[in-house]
Amino acid sequence: MRGEFDLIRKYFYQRQKNRDDVHLGLGDDCAIVKAPHDARLVISTDTLVEGTHFIAGTNPAWIAHKALASNLSDLAAMGGTPAWCSLALTLPEVHEPWLQSFSDAFFRLADEYGIQLIGGDTTKGPLSISITVHGFVPEEIALTRAGAAVDDWVYVTGYLGDSKAGLELILSELPNSELNKKVLEKRHYLSEPKVLAGQALLGVASSAIDISDGLISDIRHILEASGVGISIDVSQLPVSGELLEYLNDDLALTRQYALSSGEEYELCFTVPETKKYLLEGISAQSDTRFTCIGQVNSVNQIVLHDQGQPLSWTLSGYDHFKVNQ
Amino acid sequence: MRGEFDLIRKYFYQRQKNRDDVHLGLGDDCAIVKAPHDARLVISTDTLVEGTHFIAGTNPAWIAHKALASNLSDLAAMGGTPAWCSLALTLPEVHEPWLQSFSDAFFRLADEYGIQLIGGDTTKGPLSISITVHGFVPEEIALTRAGAAVDDWVYVTGYLGDSKAGLELILSELPNSELNKKVLEKRHYLSEPKVLAGQALLGVASSAIDISDGLISDIRHILEASGVGISIDVSQLPVSGELLEYLNDDLALTRQYALSSGEEYELCFTVPETKKYLLEGISAQSDTRFTCIGQVNSVNQIVLHDQGQPLSWTLSGYDHFKVNQ
Repeated sequence: MRGEFDLIRKYFYQRQKNRDDVHLGLGDDCAIVKAPHDARLVISTDTLVEGTHFIAGTNPAWIAHKALASNLSDLAAMGGTPAWCSLALTLPEVHEPWLQSFSDAFFRLADEYGIQLIGGDTTKGPLSISITVHGFVPEEIALTRAGAAVDDWVYVTGYLGDSKAGLELILSELPNSELNKKVLEKRHYLSEPKVLAGQALLGVASSAIDISDGLISDIRHILEASGVGISIDVSQLPVSGELLEYLNDDLALTRQYALSSGEEYELCFTVPETKKYLLEGISAQSDTRFTCIGQVNSVNQIVLHDQGQPLSWTLSGYDHFKVNQ
Repeated sequence: MRGEFDLIRKYFYQRQKNRDDVHLGLGDDCAIVKAPHDARLVISTDTLVEGTHFIAGTNPAWIAHKALASNLSDLAAMGGTPAWCSLALTLPEVHEPWLQSFSDAFFRLADEYGIQLIGGDTTKGPLSISITVHGFVPEEIALTRAGAAVDDWVYVTGYLGDSKAGLELILSELPNSELNKKVLEKRHYLSEPKVLAGQALLGVASSAIDISDGLISDIRHILEASGVGISIDVSQLPVSGELLEYLNDDLALTRQYALSSGEEYELCFTVPETKKYLLEGISAQSDTRFTCIGQVNSVNQIVLHDQGQPLSWTLSGYDHFKVNQ
């Protein structure tokens, strides 16, 4: 088996230009790297497991993209500049076309964000991918879940809800040729982490989180860490035309998808009134759509409304809404 | 499922004293840490998978120890001072007694080496543990596989071969009450990473590696990275009384075990003649046994001999010896 696993090296070694701060990359017991004097390190780990995060037979390029993107999204939520990553890859067998496709997609995304693979481990077992990413943030400006203050405005990037719809289409395993369904499926696997936006929001946003479990679940972490409440105007939730079409223009359901869809890898962040004027420039510069969906208050809970009209939706279970009537 | 997985937090949160260089530990999208100005970072990742690295039903405390120890051993091989780690834990179910035992053992070893858990991910799936460790080394003194020079002496720490025997006893699943067999089983799971010795060897050893695949396999990496050869006097290989007893005092077989036993987490290192005199002090100070087993030469291969008498053992397969006669 080991001999076979040595084959894997060829798909991961010397695939990238060496960063100046990497003194020793792949191939020793440890990598040796050097962090900048004036920066702190931000570090995050995310694991994808077959059967839990993706179904058997999923395109290996999509798995690689999603595994690295979900980690880069964590860096984005802290405003981090990507630097280095490690890849722990567990495979049931060595299948070279799979490795070629996986590694090509992995390095395509890694190179796009300037992150270098510096280490990892390859083992035999049920398919899973665990990645640890490292990035830099300035010494004194942190972007965490803990800074939201009363009256700050609440924003999200991109469109919400597509990932959940995409997952449903994938799990249905129905052949579908409609363009909008293909778009949704791709959004589930191939979302772009909002790294540039996160970096530009350092010193501007008062708190941030990435949307991995669903907006409502994730925003709760900002509430808890910041000790505040948030009201969300569901009429402002940004949703794609593809999602609306998929849900037969059912506006209430579309908004519920936007509130609960996980693995979006969009950012949710809060901004004080005094810094709101900076957002237009940041949005343009990072080519990222920002939408204001609500405001921070002192109530210590999430209140949903529709242009001021109270709503009685409550989350029932992990990601299903119950409409109380 | 998610609610259940939230339970896991309680076994990992606030279990350790916060290091001064950890600005934000568990609980946000990333940890925020600060590396010392005058140090480089050494980073390594190791994964253990049920069915590959340990059998189902293994004591969770042993799994935790082994998972972290194998990573600390990689830091040791670079002379690193442990600092931070991330834990990606994939579990088929949330079983609280398992988590209690696993986390207790994890933090016992982590605290012993001053390494703080700063992040990770918990997912549902087949049992596996992937850990990424971070440590510090001085700016200008690296301990890698690449520095061995002709005439340097070759050393190993501890005793070799016990881990292989321990694994055999575990896999045989025979009930055994003999003390020496229990010792061997424990050596397979509960070896101590040679962190203090590795740190003390910085600036003294010319190259080092930890013994994870077996001495012969691992020493080959020193040969390749340093462009040298090594002769090993098998009569000098340090073996325990327990191993000799287990192998019925078969000296040749015992030495073959010492050459091929993996997951030992001992160090193999080379030292120039001019620095040999320092080893006695380092051995005493780090409470680690050092044994000289051979010498570096220019032949570019591994030559085994028995006090100067040539041997014709060759490795057949991953860890079995064939005796050519």
